Amino acid sequence: MESKIPYKIYLTEDEIPTQWYNVRADMKNKPAPLISPADGHALTIEEMNPIFCEELNKQELDNDTAYFDIPGEIMDFYKMYRPSPLVRAYFLEKALDTPAKIYYKFEGNNTSGSHKLNSSIAQAYYAKKQGLKGVTTETGAGQWGTALSMACAYFGLDCKVFMVKVSYEQKPFRREVMRTYGATVTPSPSMTTQVGRKILSEHPDTTGSLGCAISEAVETAVTNPGYRYVLGSVLNQVVLHQSIIGLEAQTAMKKYGIKPDILIGCAGGGSNLGGFTGPFFGEILRGEADYKIIGVEPSSCPSFTRGKFAYDFCDTGMICPLAKMYTLGSQFMPSANHAGGLRFHGISPILAQLYHDGYFEARAVEQSSVFEAAEIFARTEGILPAPESSHAIRVAIDEALKCKETGESKTIAFNLTGTGYFDLVAYQQYNDGTMTDVIPDDAVIAEALTKLPKIGNE
Amino acid sequence: MESKIPYKIYLTEDEIPTQWYNVRADMKNKPAPLISPADGHALTIEEMNPIFCEELNKQELDNDTAYFDIPGEIMDFYKMYRPSPLVRAYFLEKALDTPAKIYYKFEGNNTSGSHKLNSSIAQAYYAKKQGLKGVTTETGAGQWGTALSMACAYFGLDCKVFMVKVSYEQKPFRREVMRTYGATVTPSPSMTTQVGRKILSEHPDTTGSLGCAISEAVETAVTNPGYRYVLGSVLNQVVLHQSIIGLEAQTAMKKYGIKPDILIGCAGGGSNLGGFTGPFFGEILRGEADYKIIGVEPSSCPSFTRGKFAYDFCDTGMICPLAKMYTLGSQFMPSANHAGGLRFHGISPILAQLYHDGYFEARAVEQSSVFEAAEIFARTEGILPAPESSHAIRVAIDEALKCKETGESKTIAFNLTGTGYFDLVAYQQYNDGTMTDVIPDDAVIAEALTKLPKIGNE
Repeated sequence: MESKIPYKIYLTEDEIPTQWYNVRADMKNKPAPLISPADGHALTIEEMNPIFCEELNKQELDNDTAYFDIPGEIMDFYKMYRPSPLVRAYFLEKALDTPAKIYYKFEGNNTSGSHKLNSSIAQAYYAKKQGLKGVTTETGAGQWGTALSMACAYFGLDCKVFMVKVSYEQKPFRREVMRTYGATVTPSPSMTTQVGRKILSEHPDTTGSLGCAISEAVETAVTNPGYRYVLGSVLNQVVLHQSIIGLEAQTAMKKYGIKPDILIGCAGGGSNLGGFTGPFFGEILRGEADYKIIGVEPSSCPSFTRGKFAYDFCDTGMICPLAKMYTLGSQFMPSANHAGGLRFHGISPILAQLYHDGYFEARAVEQSSVFEAAEIFARTEGILPAPESSHAIRVAIDEALKCKETGESKTIAFNLTGTGYFDLVAYQQYNDGTMTDVIPDDAVIAEALTKLPKIGNE
Repeated sequence: MESKIPYKIYLTEDEIPTQWYNVRADMKNKPAPLISPADGHALTIEEMNPIFCEELNKQELDNDTAYFDIPGEIMDFYKMYRPSPLVRAYFLEKALDTPAKIYYKFEGNNTSGSHKLNSSIAQAYYAKKQGLKGVTTETGAGQWGTALSMACAYFGLDCKVFMVKVSYEQKPFRREVMRTYGATVTPSPSMTTQVGRKILSEHPDTTGSLGCAISEAVETAVTNPGYRYVLGSVLNQVVLHQSIIGLEAQTAMKKYGIKPDILIGCAGGGSNLGGFTGPFFGEILRGEADYKIIGVEPSSCPSFTRGKFAYDFCDTGMICPLAKMYTLGSQFMPSANHAGGLRFHGISPILAQLYHDGYFEARAVEQSSVFEAAEIFARTEGILPAPESSHAIRVAIDEALKCKETGESKTIAFNLTGTGYFDLVAYQQYNDGTMTDVIPDDAVIAEALTKLPKIGNE
């Protein structure tokens, strides 16, 4: 049987799941709602509609519907780059000399280089269906901006991306991919928004921040008729759309009789971990199966392992609604020498609730060990992994080496959502031996946590 | 029937061809042999063995064996990234509103980003089998160097890459991928070789050339015991290894009853065009089928369409053996504003002979129209194509638009061998509207052709 498992399991196009799975439907303790920072009331769809697309708001607020049909137009687009392969890491296993069986779901074989396309195409579709002219968003490293620009090009929507100025200048290639897909990419802060002009008048030399870019994107959406703001992580709708990853993985595993013992994903805002593990959490929550699930975060931005379960702003600008999550405080900034993405101070409220309720383990890893794992993986499996996903590779290797010690033949599966073609400055640091690890002091985290809002936490 | 053809045809791993096809076996007029620049005698295997690997030299000189078994270790590695999909370009067809059916064989889904891995793994395997310590090579843009470094990492071989200094400095990311795979990357000219020191003493500010990098790589191979020199294009052995592309395409087409009318590949040194079309040429040569085959080259480096069928040096340094090919002269340099690769002055002797014998058509296209095609393709098919392959996309689109005019429903297939992640400087020029086309004057080509060697051409 085992010998019949191919290196890469590709489902047929007919086997691509036609529904997204909403893990909230199976959660006893639902994730806490988004609330107003003014008075703490749970946001209504009427309050959300001027900022976000209507259909997406319905998905955002729906804690009960277990499955959502994927519209035909989105299924068509999915067939452009899906199904993504579930790969048996035979070469990695051999290099590690482990009795463990290692699998990875590979989402990097599309030009955005990541899984972000799974949600951007859905968000663009609903924007188009609503008759909008375009959407606005912010992007840091650029994965989400790239995925959104591809989706907007497909549906003929205008796409305005505010890119943190330092990234805009240091990652010109990401910017050019977005421009090739027709997006307008503006370095943030910019003179195109009130908030941008204000910040530039006060701090003319600023290199920008994600918080500021969010503010500019939101302002642009609400002040331009026919535009809405869209977001690539954290939100419930994103975890919903990304469930296609876990559902495909389940289908492939069932087809070949693979039963995973351990499932691993990296944790930034939650789109990767939540998308891959959501359907497996569903099995756990329904009492159908049991898995050891591990969320892996950087030691330099350790929301789960050192953060607080509390309501907090999603943005450093403190203008967005409050979400209940594990947070290091919205003012927490990972060290400048942190290379590997996953720099969000909080996490998806769904994952926060599941973690709070004890459904999975979180582990923090240091970046030099992450790049060591990335290099091992690149050399054995022939894929240069994104630094974010390499956090999961690190723990997959650690677990496989434990199996080597104990002689256990566990089945380990992790989510490899991206490629590292635009992260070579970080790889160069690792190759040059100049990469360092910085773990924040307790005092730094404690200080950042003093800025938690009172609203929602009293 | 047609509706059952999936967007992406993935063969099963069992269906990957297990033999390479040697088109020379079916050619009535064999490609001319490599000859000595000193006296014009055809090189013997004894003369080649000190420079190249023995088994590869046997393949190089074998004009008769039609099929070579692919060794098991290479088949294992192929399964890491093969089979590559044959994709029906439904989205592109729709955008063009053409009755033509367009397919592309996509070889870019591996970290080297190109088809070069098909030959580098074979060359590394034979070097390892010969008991060598390592191999040397040169690289310009870096695709071949990256593919070779991946292959060497897999077999534990040392890999010394001489990278043209200007590319080393302008493409630091390619360099870092090679370093991640453990290769030593040296900017050329360097102080590590006699020839490099000589050039640097004469031209201390030179930014290098491919010819110089070849000289350094060859010197390093012959002066270091246990090393040999390897090459990623032009040679017969490369066309042999790359036949895996065309063989897989044929298998996929037969499986789904697809009968191509037109086959298109871009032409630089010949690894892309020769690999894809070789097995189809075989059908033509054996009288089993007829196809219209088109080789597409840049107007700025038009070897087929404006070059001469003659013996010439393969390198600008004029130290390597002579090959009979369509050539613009080894001293011809494409304009500095030529962005899209394919800058070799000659072409594979196999393809040169087939072209000379009238088996296919060559077409030269301008780079701004190539990037226009690349952008259309990226936006519709979701893949950012390499500039080289985009030459083939340009002609595929042109042929599809002709079908739109005539109402014919031809089946067009082209070879998409690479992704454009490391070519974004050129995309930026296109996005900024600063890209220009330069077509060399007749006088420039005539002047370069005056430098053809007398040996072999008298």
